[in-house]
Amino acid sequence: MFVKHGMNSGFSSLASSVVLRRQQFLIRSLKGYSVSDKIRMEAVKCLSGGASLEANAESVLRAITPSLDPTRHKGQAGKIAVVGGCREYTGAPYFAAISALKIGADLSHVFCTEGAATVIKSYSPELIVHPILEESYNISGVNDEGKRDISKKILSEFDKWMERFDCLVVGPGLGRDPFLLECVSKIMTRARQSNVPIVVDGDGLFLVTNSIELVSGYRLAVLTPNVIEYKRLVQKVLGCDVNDQNTHGELLSLSKQIGGVTILRKGKSDLISDGEKVQSVSIYGSPRRCGGQGDILSGSVAVFLSWARQCNLAAERESTISRTNPTVLGCIAGSALLRKAAALAFEHKKRSTLTTDIIEHLGQSLEAISPVS
Amino acid sequence: MFVKHGMNSGFSSLASSVVLRRQQFLIRSLKGYSVSDKIRMEAVKCLSGGASLEANAESVLRAITPSLDPTRHKGQAGKIAVVGGCREYTGAPYFAAISALKIGADLSHVFCTEGAATVIKSYSPELIVHPILEESYNISGVNDEGKRDISKKILSEFDKWMERFDCLVVGPGLGRDPFLLECVSKIMTRARQSNVPIVVDGDGLFLVTNSIELVSGYRLAVLTPNVIEYKRLVQKVLGCDVNDQNTHGELLSLSKQIGGVTILRKGKSDLISDGEKVQSVSIYGSPRRCGGQGDILSGSVAVFLSWARQCNLAAERESTISRTNPTVLGCIAGSALLRKAAALAFEHKKRSTLTTDIIEHLGQSLEAISPVS
Repeated sequence: MFVKHGMNSGFSSLASSVVLRRQQFLIRSLKGYSVSDKIRMEAVKCLSGGASLEANAESVLRAITPSLDPTRHKGQAGKIAVVGGCREYTGAPYFAAISALKIGADLSHVFCTEGAATVIKSYSPELIVHPILEESYNISGVNDEGKRDISKKILSEFDKWMERFDCLVVGPGLGRDPFLLECVSKIMTRARQSNVPIVVDGDGLFLVTNSIELVSGYRLAVLTPNVIEYKRLVQKVLGCDVNDQNTHGELLSLSKQIGGVTILRKGKSDLISDGEKVQSVSIYGSPRRCGGQGDILSGSVAVFLSWARQCNLAAERESTISRTNPTVLGCIAGSALLRKAAALAFEHKKRSTLTTDIIEHLGQSLEAISPVS
Repeated sequence: MFVKHGMNSGFSSLASSVVLRRQQFLIRSLKGYSVSDKIRMEAVKCLSGGASLEANAESVLRAITPSLDPTRHKGQAGKIAVVGGCREYTGAPYFAAISALKIGADLSHVFCTEGAATVIKSYSPELIVHPILEESYNISGVNDEGKRDISKKILSEFDKWMERFDCLVVGPGLGRDPFLLECVSKIMTRARQSNVPIVVDGDGLFLVTNSIELVSGYRLAVLTPNVIEYKRLVQKVLGCDVNDQNTHGELLSLSKQIGGVTILRKGKSDLISDGEKVQSVSIYGSPRRCGGQGDILSGSVAVFLSWARQCNLAAERESTISRTNPTVLGCIAGSALLRKAAALAFEHKKRSTLTTDIIEHLGQSLEAISPVS
């Protein structure tokens, strides 16, 4: 079975057929995907066999970034969906979704509330924005039955699209409205049933920390907490405070405790673990801490994770590439690229560097590491 | 009769008078249009007489691009209308409409839903955006009579404008709402009655594939299917699966079966046929497959088709220019220009190339082939 890390118990026959259709779809997508480049193979082998803590991030980026082949068609370089965008937040889901396109994904969707949709659409005609989510604020007069109907409709709208996506990003600008979060929980459950990977950030982490079963045991889930979000997660899952004397051991325990979910702990160095080992990315980025950089990271991890999965799948067919966890590869690549782009943007804009400036340097940064030809 | 490829049976006297007014209008538009340049004539002659499959696309572009003459007035270089833009999609109609302007059309309109209109207007002040379409979503409480009234109103709003247009593009970001598609069917029928050419793409192809009579026998219609849309069209019209061993024969049969409608089959090479012969455009473009490139193509074909028609009409008066089908010329030119612009954009932006970047290179690409002086 080529999807190695999916959860495979407790699903209905409906869910199984959904999984099967998605697998067939992924096999079709692979047509034309080439990882014949020996250097790529070696890079991944080296990474998985190496004992060093600091990941060879540039080699990972080169290994998983697919070659651009004129015979490939729209969608094969990645279809990403961001679930986020509410009454208060519109920038975050935009940053995540546009970053995915700028790195090289073919299609980038956003699922958000109606009010947020108008604004996010206006930021860029390149995104496909679905105004399907609802907040309590807008349905205060609706009774419980009406709310159930709204919830069902939201899920049915999302279902039409879900199988097309290579990865979901849940959380950028999601907000904390209880009704909205309940609907998003159902969306996550549905995505998990279909083995669609999920990157969880921002308010998605608030949701997951309070309902850890949403990701527990799902090895295609990635959590990207910052210092505060990590602290809450440790308190909730391990029942203790963060121990700065045992950073690596604690991260390993946390990941294991959530059943092998990959965690990218953001910090001066980013630390990444799927419960097997801890790797770090320490490339120098930028001292600027403007809001929105975490959104670039979540969108980037989504693309690289999708590419790493394709890469692994192709390798399995060729029986040569090492079986490196694609979620870990995605985190290493995403972290490294953001840092490179942030450094470049800061070189130009210094204190006035904004998230948009960093996004404008994503393409150039990737090209410097993994040129198209 | 100077409009050679119009449908000329089954129209009411009202429709005939509409045709007459449009013919008079086209004759007026021709004033000042000059195709005296011998090179242009030769290029078109060469194309129509040549036996080679690969179209001499640059010669076609030079032949049909009108000279810029200070005596001409607003509108004479083309007035394009895009029918598309709904709750989910706003980028696609924008891409088609702005591409038309960037190539050199004078006016570009968009007919869409109210929600989409606000967003599309915000993308660019250059477009004229009409918020006239309605989706079932917004009129769920309206009874059948009410819906008929809404439909009539939409058609009457559109009628006010239709005769001014040199070409319609139906489909970019149209969506698949049944009520909206029913109204768009009526718009297409009305345009056909007035001999306004129609380029059909995206969800417009979904509509046409299920109601082939909308374009059947209309030689001023162009369909621009991608791999998946072409497959559906072949299955529906020819009742079989796509045969990759007989690509050209199949495309010829398909076009003939729909009564000489021009089909541009998008792929590694674009294949174009109006049922007479098959021509290809294989100029190298870009390996990037970001969503939206098809929308640039549909807007471009609309402009070039309009120019090619003007060119033919002028030539007929001078009795020298060959009678090349303007819809085929429009497809060749549109395909070639998109490929040139995509190549230029990719040279600069590599993997991070987006549709907006390609649009920014349309003018430069056309200027390189057919300079204004």
